[in-house]
Amino acid sequence: MSASARMKHFGWGREGEGLNAEEEAFVLARAEARFGTVLKESAGAPQLEDIKLEAPRVTAPVSLAFCTSEHYDRAAHTYGKSYPELVRGLARDYANAPDVVAYPRSEGEVAAALDWAGSADATVTPFGGGSSVCGGVEPTRNGHKGAVTIDLRELGKVKEVDKTSRAALIEGGTYGPALEAQLRPHGLTLRHFPQSFEYSTLGGWIATRGGGHFATLYTHIDDFVESLRVVTPKGTLESRRLPGSGAGPSPDRMMIGSEGILGIITQAWMRLQDRPTFRDGGAVRFADFFAAAKAVRAIAQAGLYPSNCRILDPQEAYNTGAADGSVAIMVLAFESADHDVAPWMTRARECCADHGGIPEASGADAHREGAAGVWRNAFIRMPYAIEKLILRGVINDTFETSITWDRFEKFHDAIKSATANAIVEATGRKGQVTCRFTHVYPDGPAPYFTFHALGEPGRLGEQWRIIKGAALDAVIANGGTVTHHHAVGRDHRPWYDRQRPPLFAEALRAAKKALDPQGLLNPGVLIDP
Amino acid sequence: MSASARMKHFGWGREGEGLNAEEEAFVLARAEARFGTVLKESAGAPQLEDIKLEAPRVTAPVSLAFCTSEHYDRAAHTYGKSYPELVRGLARDYANAPDVVAYPRSEGEVAAALDWAGSADATVTPFGGGSSVCGGVEPTRNGHKGAVTIDLRELGKVKEVDKTSRAALIEGGTYGPALEAQLRPHGLTLRHFPQSFEYSTLGGWIATRGGGHFATLYTHIDDFVESLRVVTPKGTLESRRLPGSGAGPSPDRMMIGSEGILGIITQAWMRLQDRPTFRDGGAVRFADFFAAAKAVRAIAQAGLYPSNCRILDPQEAYNTGAADGSVAIMVLAFESADHDVAPWMTRARECCADHGGIPEASGADAHREGAAGVWRNAFIRMPYAIEKLILRGVINDTFETSITWDRFEKFHDAIKSATANAIVEATGRKGQVTCRFTHVYPDGPAPYFTFHALGEPGRLGEQWRIIKGAALDAVIANGGTVTHHHAVGRDHRPWYDRQRPPLFAEALRAAKKALDPQGLLNPGVLIDP
Repeated sequence: MSASARMKHFGWGREGEGLNAEEEAFVLARAEARFGTVLKESAGAPQLEDIKLEAPRVTAPVSLAFCTSEHYDRAAHTYGKSYPELVRGLARDYANAPDVVAYPRSEGEVAAALDWAGSADATVTPFGGGSSVCGGVEPTRNGHKGAVTIDLRELGKVKEVDKTSRAALIEGGTYGPALEAQLRPHGLTLRHFPQSFEYSTLGGWIATRGGGHFATLYTHIDDFVESLRVVTPKGTLESRRLPGSGAGPSPDRMMIGSEGILGIITQAWMRLQDRPTFRDGGAVRFADFFAAAKAVRAIAQAGLYPSNCRILDPQEAYNTGAADGSVAIMVLAFESADHDVAPWMTRARECCADHGGIPEASGADAHREGAAGVWRNAFIRMPYAIEKLILRGVINDTFETSITWDRFEKFHDAIKSATANAIVEATGRKGQVTCRFTHVYPDGPAPYFTFHALGEPGRLGEQWRIIKGAALDAVIANGGTVTHHHAVGRDHRPWYDRQRPPLFAEALRAAKKALDPQGLLNPGVLIDP
Repeated sequence: MSASARMKHFGWGREGEGLNAEEEAFVLARAEARFGTVLKESAGAPQLEDIKLEAPRVTAPVSLAFCTSEHYDRAAHTYGKSYPELVRGLARDYANAPDVVAYPRSEGEVAAALDWAGSADATVTPFGGGSSVCGGVEPTRNGHKGAVTIDLRELGKVKEVDKTSRAALIEGGTYGPALEAQLRPHGLTLRHFPQSFEYSTLGGWIATRGGGHFATLYTHIDDFVESLRVVTPKGTLESRRLPGSGAGPSPDRMMIGSEGILGIITQAWMRLQDRPTFRDGGAVRFADFFAAAKAVRAIAQAGLYPSNCRILDPQEAYNTGAADGSVAIMVLAFESADHDVAPWMTRARECCADHGGIPEASGADAHREGAAGVWRNAFIRMPYAIEKLILRGVINDTFETSITWDRFEKFHDAIKSATANAIVEATGRKGQVTCRFTHVYPDGPAPYFTFHALGEPGRLGEQWRIIKGAALDAVIANGGTVTHHHAVGRDHRPWYDRQRPPLFAEALRAAKKALDPQGLLNPGVLIDP
């Protein structure tokens, strides 16, 4: 295994990681204040030895030495990091554990694993870092004999760097930190920094159309993909390395977002950036969220392309310690490896001022200081909090969407109140719903909602389903997308079905059948087989 | 019919349009100098009454009042504007004329035309403005009984404008000028200005992944598409209006570039721009093309996003009258509706100076003056020249591609020499091959090649095929794309087959079968049925 510590079998990150005592105290105090009650632990995280797994239905032949059916590997590949998966982990429900986990060390071994799975009648779940928060990596047998998870972690190399074109050929299983570490000596960076950066892989980012560092312009991984190699049950598909093309529908765009149902991304040529040397940014305070949103719209439509242009509503700013709850916060930043960004920042500040925005003092490292820095740290540490709070019956989840500007305010209010009402309905007690923007476009923002509810141990999954269901009902009814950058997975599938054009489902099903005639790859994800 | 004058049945644009005497003299003088000989007319454009059409194999029922089998309509819908189509027009070969031309006035009539074509066993060719330069609109029967062309010109309205999100719902048959005229009262513009702007439609731009005004960033129509409605033989597919999404592979991206094989684009929500009020730009001279290319690369990688950043090699600059043949020319421009672009332009000029670039005097309207303006005018008038020169035996065509920067210089030389050699091989006489960049990316340029050869009347098609074939052989062998923004059509299909991953063809064929089970839509385009 490449990493120094093992991935946790339950919870976020690697073994030994988590909140420190100070962080935990802060998070707990905020949660207790939110629900007006002392929160006591009512459950314990499952220990590895607590987890009972059925005997494997299929086992790999000895010749496939990169495959294992060891207890840890099966348990640690049963779930991603979505809330209902945590609930089922707490319930020691590991019925869907894969029978075999494969760690192929080459593309040939990926193909060999797929071939063997086909002959053994086993479904195949591609596994990047396993940080999916929407049920994207749980294996299902779906009537087949067994289930194999293919974990790409051993395909972790930057194979070739083209400094002239600023691009690199990178293997699909490369984790964020390893990817950046291998690019750094060349002065280059992908600058794709999702919250899961340390625990997710290039292939996973591409398969899920992940969103990253850039709040504008390069919001998703999609535009950084120059070409792909994908192993399917019918063979390997490789697209041509091109800066741009108009030759038919883009083959890459069929694979980007396919969530493992069409094939396994083994490598990609990725477009890179020079490491930025010019920076300007900081936090800007607004009287309310809609005023901040108007400033965001002005900046997004001005053609300024800030790297960061995110806003937090007053409650979200308070929850993360970034402000006192009376103001909305914008985190604004420009960066460049080429030129001083002061003219850009000056104009963006004018857009803020037009809507009553008042800047905090700014500096070269402003994105790591002040309100922006506090929020940034809370953002990165947040997933560790969820696995602590769930032991105390807290239901905490997020969902992210997008909507055009003309509908945004009504949309925001409808989603928020539907979610807040569902919390009361599900738990009999008020909770909290907050909103921020993660990415913005000239034609609309990507609002990201977080909800907090105090549930009842033993009923957390059911209560979560009521709340998330009501939230997504409202998102779909009001014209949004079921996911802007987290992916569909199993959790969002019923709402995706209402969003996606039925004839596109027909076309996608036919395309899948052509590449995966046995229907083994991630059955039930995106479409029914 | 919406337009004041009829579309020509042979040649570019509308009846009564063409080069004026001065332009014609300039073009002819340049051509005679190029080939060192006097060029005499050896053929005449076909008059409408010269064209013999077979009796229609199918005719539309009277209830479909928007359909016709009139002589003019059938003749004028037989060909697009590609060179081999002009050759066949000169030979009075109209064997593939459609039996019926439909001008539906509503989406319902589009569906009715498709339904009737299915019942009559007729293939269907969607027709926008008919300005395809790669054989994209010629009907084929492909073993079916008849051929119907569906001309979308009556679907020419901007139906709804959302000023807040800067977007509009626009019908697929809307021509460029009508589209901009309807947006102008709202202060908005699509700013998609292909060379064919006056003679092409929104639906055509989307179906072919057309390239437009912006040399960087928004190079293709693709990124301006917010959502689509597409009528297929299996029903209507409509995507959701979203600023961004990560919910599965993009349905729009399957349709964008599908060249009419999956369905007919009846309307689209398009992302728009405010009309620019700040402008800076002008021409920059370079000692040679590769020095200019280095400056382009620096600008493209700097994150400056000029609206124009095109370069002409010395021969191309000479041919269009933009320079004396001793220098390469860059046409550089920034524009904004929001802010003064001087800081951007200043930095771009520094990038030029780093590579020896010397600016012409610049001004607010510099893109319409000086070398830049001369070139711009020649660019727009060029298609009219081809239909004049072909009467004198001149073979004149273009092809456009893209390549990463690391391979660009070798690629350029290989393509140029393969094409030049093929001209000698095909015609026994030296011709000329010139290059410019139409669009640029951080990871590579989109080179656009023009070739000039003097052929032999009666053998022009065959000679063209040798030259274009050798050029595209070289493009494909050296890693480029068969088309960056003109589309594949029938002319590029054999090379597209070598570029496109075979498994993507399988997936696309399956998707088409799901939407068009009878295989009636544009058979033979992109894939075999």
